[in-house]
Amino acid sequence: MNVDGKHFRTVWMPEPGVVRIIDQRRLPWAFELIALKSVAGVAHAIRDMAVRGAGCIGATAGYGMALAAIEAKTWSELESLAGILVETRPTAVNLAWAVNRQIDALRNQPVTSWPDIAKCEAEAIADEDSAACEQIGVHGLELIRGIAAKKPGAVVNVLTHCNAGWLAFVDHGSATAPIYAAHDAGIPIHVWVDETRPRNQGARLTAWELARQGVPHTVIADNTGGHLMQHGQVDFVITGADRVTRNGDVANKIGTYLKALAARDNGVPFYVALPSSTFDWNITDGVKNIPIEQRGGEEVNWMEGADSNGTLHNVRVVPAASPAANYAFDVTPARLVTGLITERGVFAADERALCATFSDVARASAL
Amino acid sequence: MNVDGKHFRTVWMPEPGVVRIIDQRRLPWAFELIALKSVAGVAHAIRDMAVRGAGCIGATAGYGMALAAIEAKTWSELESLAGILVETRPTAVNLAWAVNRQIDALRNQPVTSWPDIAKCEAEAIADEDSAACEQIGVHGLELIRGIAAKKPGAVVNVLTHCNAGWLAFVDHGSATAPIYAAHDAGIPIHVWVDETRPRNQGARLTAWELARQGVPHTVIADNTGGHLMQHGQVDFVITGADRVTRNGDVANKIGTYLKALAARDNGVPFYVALPSSTFDWNITDGVKNIPIEQRGGEEVNWMEGADSNGTLHNVRVVPAASPAANYAFDVTPARLVTGLITERGVFAADERALCATFSDVARASAL
Repeated sequence: MNVDGKHFRTVWMPEPGVVRIIDQRRLPWAFELIALKSVAGVAHAIRDMAVRGAGCIGATAGYGMALAAIEAKTWSELESLAGILVETRPTAVNLAWAVNRQIDALRNQPVTSWPDIAKCEAEAIADEDSAACEQIGVHGLELIRGIAAKKPGAVVNVLTHCNAGWLAFVDHGSATAPIYAAHDAGIPIHVWVDETRPRNQGARLTAWELARQGVPHTVIADNTGGHLMQHGQVDFVITGADRVTRNGDVANKIGTYLKALAARDNGVPFYVALPSSTFDWNITDGVKNIPIEQRGGEEVNWMEGADSNGTLHNVRVVPAASPAANYAFDVTPARLVTGLITERGVFAADERALCATFSDVARASAL
Repeated sequence: MNVDGKHFRTVWMPEPGVVRIIDQRRLPWAFELIALKSVAGVAHAIRDMAVRGAGCIGATAGYGMALAAIEAKTWSELESLAGILVETRPTAVNLAWAVNRQIDALRNQPVTSWPDIAKCEAEAIADEDSAACEQIGVHGLELIRGIAAKKPGAVVNVLTHCNAGWLAFVDHGSATAPIYAAHDAGIPIHVWVDETRPRNQGARLTAWELARQGVPHTVIADNTGGHLMQHGQVDFVITGADRVTRNGDVANKIGTYLKALAARDNGVPFYVALPSSTFDWNITDGVKNIPIEQRGGEEVNWMEGADSNGTLHNVRVVPAASPAANYAFDVTPARLVTGLITERGVFAADERALCATFSDVARASAL
């Protein structure tokens, strides 16, 4: 997407042996690129969350394997480098998937051909991620057109939670793709951006993204969405997902479930946008069976920001005597989800509908 | 309540002509008392939110009138000083109510008797506020005993939003009174404290209060309550209220409605604690008719905290290019409220039940 008039992806290979990423730890305070020239460098960038978001992590790991294909002189060296990448974020499904895809592509190929094959494969992974998001945009745009048609000339108000934007993928984003498509199509659109405590991905990343594309938006405390929906100020809600079960239960950033409840209570459509790689075909009851990561309380207790001189400070916002708990995700039951926007179209959050459409993917990954 | 082993109220008159308050702007970073010796000083303290919370503002205004009764030499001077106090927070119902109660007490009394009469009346206002909260504790304790009886020996988990603690009243608090009563009665209780963005009254004030009384508690992002309720980690929710309609719709801090929805979806009891002075007998449809204050976006965009050296910084947490909206309250419809805990007992959020019980109060204040 655009940053100061120039098109960027979150990760790319400007020349063989060099992987370039946007340092997302520095956003929104600074837009800085990093050049990674070794598997160790890529591993550190993933572990330290210079890149984050399922699609972006997967593509970065794919490019990391393109560096591994240069560094390794034997199959066992290649496997050892692959292991270093996989261990950086053990729960990130896309990461292991991208690394394994590279391993499969290189198996039984001559060592001298590895660099070219792996570079091609990395670019294919990134291109497919970008294309899937673009298709989510195409299908989501039709939903927004439908809403816009009911209120000609009026602004369409969307609410989103966390960052399922292009920074979380290679390009376009999942939840943001329909928003960018609508904005490009000239539909007047405005986005309510949940700040998304405790890590503030909405305030830090989604707001930054939308400002770069010139999409009108307003940051709100996570507490606000219910009130806005009660007063007709939200036409639809769209979020991303970290994992979606075969029956349509949605694991996403903590707080998503509360917005889905408010949407249901006020008759506001609640959509989840995801590439089909986000489905987990092995789970049916998401609330019971999706493990929810607990992170350190310091993410609740401390907050980073810039003072009026632009100097960054990390400040404690909770008294030292009080502990904090930090659940990273929650699960929105399928009954609260109006529809799932995927690269193959929009579907009900319903096992029969999903398995019929994605039977090829489901069969390939089922237990 | 206790601060470092010593009992405090939020406002009191240690000697004629002096009003003492806790400077709540400095909490939780410092516990400091301020002596106010003039009506102008009291007005500034209320306007600048050194004191906040319905009961606390009302009592402070009552004591402010005790200073006015010393400063004023004529009835018109007294009325003019009363006007200065009323204008500090025009939407605070208790403020005007306390000032008018003083005016009524002083009317037709000789000027020389004003200081004594007004001091007495101020103390009566404060004592009544404290007694009402104490009674809320007595009635709420029975609810908690009922929950504790169903899980003998196990910890009772309560979730609360914002600060309806003793700092918001003269003593005890509304939502916290049953919690403190249960803790004192030896019932094992643990409180999930919503940090309550954007002004963080939960993290700053409720957490500080609970720590001072030794009540086990954990601060959470406002996004977290739904997940906790889905997983049986909340036995009941209790919040305060800024205004409750005659049919039981509850205006309270923004985000309360989302927690009420999650409580309903998971079969968790949702209680609202309030002294009967918080009822507005003139309104029936709270969602339609209670005006919701919009405050400055800077409360969302900026956040105060202490760095690791204890130095306070005010830091921007949203990019400068992104505007923010700041709705201070929302309305929870009566249908989501399990019961209202008042100084007269626990009642259904239902017009007939409320008007029967509070017919004396309702008649006195109805249009």
